Amino acid sequence: MSGQSPIRLGMVGGGQGAFIGAVHRIAARLDGHYDLVAGALSSDPDRAEASAKELGLARSYGAFEEMAKAEAALPDGIEAVSIVTPNHMHYPVAKAFLEAGIHVICDKPLTSTYADAVALAELVEQSGKLFVLTHNYTGYPLIRQAREMVEQDRLGDIRLVQVEYPQDWLAEPVEQTGQKQAVWRTDPARSGAGGCVGDIGTHAYNLACFVSGLEVDSLSADLDTFVPGRQLDDNVQVMLRFRAKGGAPAAKGMLWASQVATGHENGLKLRIYGTKGGMEWQQENPNQLWFTPLGAPRQLITRAGAGATPTPLTRIPPGHPEGYLEGFANIYTEAACTIHAMRQKSGKIPEDVLFPTVSDGLAGMKFIEACVASSRKNAEWVSL
Amino acid sequence: MSGQSPIRLGMVGGGQGAFIGAVHRIAARLDGHYDLVAGALSSDPDRAEASAKELGLARSYGAFEEMAKAEAALPDGIEAVSIVTPNHMHYPVAKAFLEAGIHVICDKPLTSTYADAVALAELVEQSGKLFVLTHNYTGYPLIRQAREMVEQDRLGDIRLVQVEYPQDWLAEPVEQTGQKQAVWRTDPARSGAGGCVGDIGTHAYNLACFVSGLEVDSLSADLDTFVPGRQLDDNVQVMLRFRAKGGAPAAKGMLWASQVATGHENGLKLRIYGTKGGMEWQQENPNQLWFTPLGAPRQLITRAGAGATPTPLTRIPPGHPEGYLEGFANIYTEAACTIHAMRQKSGKIPEDVLFPTVSDGLAGMKFIEACVASSRKNAEWVSL
Amino acid sequence: MSGQSPIRLGMVGGGQGAFIGAVHRIAARLDGHYDLVAGALSSDPDRAEASAKELGLARSYGAFEEMAKAEAALPDGIEAVSIVTPNHMHYPVAKAFLEAGIHVICDKPLTSTYADAVALAELVEQSGKLFVLTHNYTGYPLIRQAREMVEQDRLGDIRLVQVEYPQDWLAEPVEQTGQKQAVWRTDPARSGAGGCVGDIGTHAYNLACFVSGLEVDSLSADLDTFVPGRQLDDNVQVMLRFRAKGGAPAAKGMLWASQVATGHENGLKLRIYGTKGGMEWQQENPNQLWFTPLGAPRQLITRAGAGATPTPLTRIPPGHPEGYLEGFANIYTEAACTIHAMRQKSGKIPEDVLFPTVSDGLAGMKFIEACVASSRKNAEWVSL
Amino acid sequence: MSGQSPIRLGMVGGGQGAFIGAVHRIAARLDGHYDLVAGALSSDPDRAEASAKELGLARSYGAFEEMAKAEAALPDGIEAVSIVTPNHMHYPVAKAFLEAGIHVICDKPLTSTYADAVALAELVEQSGKLFVLTHNYTGYPLIRQAREMVEQDRLGDIRLVQVEYPQDWLAEPVEQTGQKQAVWRTDPARSGAGGCVGDIGTHAYNLACFVSGLEVDSLSADLDTFVPGRQLDDNVQVMLRFRAKGGAPAAKGMLWASQVATGHENGLKLRIYGTKGGMEWQQENPNQLWFTPLGAPRQLITRAGAGATPTPLTRIPPGHPEGYLEGFANIYTEAACTIHAMRQKSGKIPEDVLFPTVSDGLAGMKFIEACVASSRKNAEWVSL
Repeated sequence: MSGQSPIRLGMVGGGQGAFIGAVHRIAARLDGHYDLVAGALSSDPDRAEASAKELGLARSYGAFEEMAKAEAALPDGIEAVSIVTPNHMHYPVAKAFLEAGIHVICDKPLTSTYADAVALAELVEQSGKLFVLTHNYTGYPLIRQAREMVEQDRLGDIRLVQVEYPQDWLAEPVEQTGQKQAVWRTDPARSGAGGCVGDIGTHAYNLACFVSGLEVDSLSADLDTFVPGRQLDDNVQVMLRFRAKGGAPAAKGMLWASQVATGHENGLKLRIYGTKGGMEWQQENPNQLWFTPLGAPRQLITRAGAGATPTPLTRIPPGHPEGYLEGFANIYTEAACTIHAMRQKSGKIPEDVLFPTVSDGLAGMKFIEACVASSRKNAEWVSL
Repeated sequence: MSGQSPIRLGMVGGGQGAFIGAVHRIAARLDGHYDLVAGALSSDPDRAEASAKELGLARSYGAFEEMAKAEAALPDGIEAVSIVTPNHMHYPVAKAFLEAGIHVICDKPLTSTYADAVALAELVEQSGKLFVLTHNYTGYPLIRQAREMVEQDRLGDIRLVQVEYPQDWLAEPVEQTGQKQAVWRTDPARSGAGGCVGDIGTHAYNLACFVSGLEVDSLSADLDTFVPGRQLDDNVQVMLRFRAKGGAPAAKGMLWASQVATGHENGLKLRIYGTKGGMEWQQENPNQLWFTPLGAPRQLITRAGAGATPTPLTRIPPGHPEGYLEGFANIYTEAACTIHAMRQKSGKIPEDVLFPTVSDGLAGMKFIEACVASSRKNAEWVSL
Repeated sequence: MSGQSPIRLGMVGGGQGAFIGAVHRIAARLDGHYDLVAGALSSDPDRAEASAKELGLARSYGAFEEMAKAEAALPDGIEAVSIVTPNHMHYPVAKAFLEAGIHVICDKPLTSTYADAVALAELVEQSGKLFVLTHNYTGYPLIRQAREMVEQDRLGDIRLVQVEYPQDWLAEPVEQTGQKQAVWRTDPARSGAGGCVGDIGTHAYNLACFVSGLEVDSLSADLDTFVPGRQLDDNVQVMLRFRAKGGAPAAKGMLWASQVATGHENGLKLRIYGTKGGMEWQQENPNQLWFTPLGAPRQLITRAGAGATPTPLTRIPPGHPEGYLEGFANIYTEAACTIHAMRQKSGKIPEDVLFPTVSDGLAGMKFIEACVASSRKNAEWVSL
Repeated sequence: MSGQSPIRLGMVGGGQGAFIGAVHRIAARLDGHYDLVAGALSSDPDRAEASAKELGLARSYGAFEEMAKAEAALPDGIEAVSIVTPNHMHYPVAKAFLEAGIHVICDKPLTSTYADAVALAELVEQSGKLFVLTHNYTGYPLIRQAREMVEQDRLGDIRLVQVEYPQDWLAEPVEQTGQKQAVWRTDPARSGAGGCVGDIGTHAYNLACFVSGLEVDSLSADLDTFVPGRQLDDNVQVMLRFRAKGGAPAAKGMLWASQVATGHENGLKLRIYGTKGGMEWQQENPNQLWFTPLGAPRQLITRAGAGATPTPLTRIPPGHPEGYLEGFANIYTEAACTIHAMRQKSGKIPEDVLFPTVSDGLAGMKFIEACVASSRKNAEWVSL
């Protein structure tokens, strides 16, 4: 990407008080591939203006529709937009920018309803524009390493996939204190039908599929709401039957996501076991990957360390930890590389991108829907 | 127990080449409360004789029925017998000794069929004799600590119980090589209807209930046999609904036990989360217990260390690890204390014993049966 | 810092093939407080030019002296310069920019000789300009937390400070293969009198003093060169006697730094013990800090988690790891805040900065000199 | 050892209230190789009698001299005696039993003075009797594994040996509360010239030499007494120069032992680095050994697990932890095997024993003396 001019980026959402917007901005900035120049940072026009000023944006808009149109008309308008609103706005915002011919980088989950998700997937297909879904955990270098090791058959045929994502920040009804992050995440109108299952269950699900290369054939889910007064689930447990893409069910697994598991911050953990070996990775120390070849001692593979495949997704030598922001930035950087390539190759999206796109988002929405449906029928098996 | 003469102990099973018999002998010896004086160590009379000689037993028998009768008739016959045979022999052997008026210490699971288990439970009830089931993990000091913390309401109302027990020693068909431990464990005639679920699933189940004080209301289980040619399950995953004893369902949980999870030796791990706190314990480092009060940093409680309740179940100061054999010995030592007390108090079994007894064994058999039944019906919910 | 325009930054060193220059650029970019606009990126003018082009710099120079003069003369010339050359160039480059009235951010160690360090310290004093030394480990949020806990007397009177920094990347003579990082670090002409002691020993020393608030009274050092043909030390072990600033010796400690300790990547670890408590921190998982109050269980304090003091030095919630680059960026961001403040308050350097400055660099050079002197005299005690 | 009759064992010290005596008894009992039949369990005859009764000893003595004579005269008198008194009594007691022709198993350190140690070593030489020193950490299976890996040259030429043993139980003046273990350990009359250095420093020293196969050429030590009013050192730090047996100095290392390091229970840790690899072991989780071959990922070798050499020193499969008592028992069991062999082979002591003997004890006393001497001369180098 040497010598390429930075990509002109816009943002919708992410005004003062937001969390994930700031993360996206750091991710965009970290490797220097983007210039953030325009935004509709809040649905409240005053806050939008103040936020834009604070960030030094060249152009601020009070509404995203206006922004999409105006930017598309500018000779140096934005080439891509980051969508960092609550879930229910992902679809209308993405629609506006795709229709304006602007690439989209969108936070997960894809939308708040499955119908929106299907519509969005079609729209992306028609648009020919890039759609990047920031399932950021797929950007960790050792997650790529793990995926590659599965592909290289170093685990053999996969038998088991165990994934969990426990948190504890919703162990009490903090949404009743007005805590902004909690309020919208526990509100069906803004989050959709899934609470915990949508917020972090989809991350666990996405990661399990991303690394194992398998897809879920059917599932049996039990959702709970432990905190009185809460409207959405705060704990989900699922039994999974996996199949190779297009194959018959062959592997099993369990998924547990919780927001009431006291003692856990972001305990995302993935374990995969096959006929030849097993592996384990934990998000809270993402610079380590355990690998056990059958019959041999456990090995500790470190990011960029001995036994790890060299990758451009790492910036510093082993032993100096990279974290969440670097993983997030990897998605942005891969998107930038793709956009640069599309500038040069008549705009066609490359086939072999590794970052998550709209199809991953659609799969995630299907997962939420299946979990909710299964749980309502007393954990009956639901096919995907 | 100072000044009490050691208990005269017999053993059935545990001859040359056995594993768990040697463990029971060490456990009996460790605190000096038993004298092993008699045995029917093998169903093969020659091996029985040779094994007894090697151990320096005073009396060796070729058959357990003969032993039960002969010892009962001796003035200094055995007061208790350890049963360390494969599962299918637990019932007939226990029956013989209970009927001869001899206390029984029996390896788990209780029997190989649920019918035998029910019959044995009745027999124990009628006999007035002590029946100890060596669910040895309940003997770890920090497991007692964890149970006590639950009782003291330091976790608040329990919401979630997560337990797992992954191993990898059956990841390949080692039973086909004649490996003795594998052969009988994968044989329905000797193990019963459960393979992995009976061998280690019951340990996980027992531990979850022992510490949480809850019982399982219903479960949905999915059993698998991953290794071709194997007759019993080698992986089990279960969704659990718990209730307080005699109460309505209130907590949820998952249980995973596997013998094909490469990279795990005896990865028994228990996690419990309540409204006030969470805890975590792993068998492979049993001298540590994590406890997180809601809103406070994680604390590491060590066996006999700061914050741990003093207990006679520990022999050495913190930081010097005690392990599996010491935990096992704790069950034996508690049994010895009870037998000593029964010597003095007209033979009545004390009410408040903490070590596992026949009722725990019966619960375990019910668990196996429920798992197998649920799995056969595509993981339908089964009440317990 | 809201609404402040970014600081115009230059860079000397850090051209193609360099490592630490890229790190400085990411650190400068991460929080958006700098615009990198000018550079003399290499002593080789062609490489300097190519590197500047790749980075999209507005102005590229073939020599740092020229750059200092030219930038000082520009109305929108750089306000600060990052020096990321080998050690021996730190002094002349810093001198040129300080004399041109430009703030300096300089990689450690301060210089290659103690004489240069003394001269530079005087120069900084006279210049009134900001001098920031990137002892980046002091930028980790939990290192600030640890320092604060010492200041709050939560450890009581400090008795012991144990610090170590093992690496293994120089376990073989890689400098003979031409590996650039190894070549200059093992060359006395460019590194100075200390090899391992200068490169990473100074980090360990700086961190121990930064957190404990103590200074070294005297030391006894034993330096070794284990790899045949190497000119500088690759292992250093030191016994330390500490004193409160201006006080009498009261605490003891040991420092070990090695570049031949196979199995370690960047194993910087700090442990401090006082009359009331002890703490432990490891760089490879910098999001965790162990704290043990005397007589209580160990506590695990996480970055931004329960029990941690809120700080602007952290960007994301607990459980999502921040790493080396974020810690490095914290130094840059604190420098930016200071430069912004100096813009407003007639240029005076604030008293209470926490980031390392020239005095820390001078202390580090004194430490190297003392270690080398002590080691040459068979580890005789040397006062500082 | 099949079919061998148990060894008749006596004990001196270890009466009610003692700690290490109970440990020796468990160690002797664990594998069933000893019968404890006689004792002089306390210097207080009443306590001796009461303690013997509690343990059910066949013969109790009020004084060790009397015991030695009486037992030697009995046809079925004891064959070996365990000495578990405070340090200053090791020499006279050992002398009495060796002169009575009885094997000795003695707690460490060897004696309370170096003169006693030299005298005892001569006495052992003349006696032809077995003298076992319970440096119990050498009995951990993975310590034997580590030693074997060094011998097999899997680490290459050793460059560095780092050993530490931090505790915190003497962080306050507990000896002033009458705590029995603390009282004699801080009393020069009973402990000798070394406090912490003798009590646990010798363990660290012994382990470092045992595993590395090296011996210390010279050392520079700094001893401290941090707790006011204490008479002996409670912290020791040492720089070490090692040599191959009979060779020139080649490796370096550091030793730290402390009894005031808050947060540590028995943090004995050994790390060895050579030209081909590095290893690390910690006593608090003795079932794990880290091994890193140069340029390869870290490996986790578990007791009896994949990659570990099979050994009779382990009783149960990997993943079921063995601990301190099992390690201690290994020393007793090896001593039993040797005594059995001596019964059969005209009483000659085998050449190749691995358990520690009087020469290790003498080396430990020399180490204490050298540390004290060096520290008194401001950490001057002292040759060994």
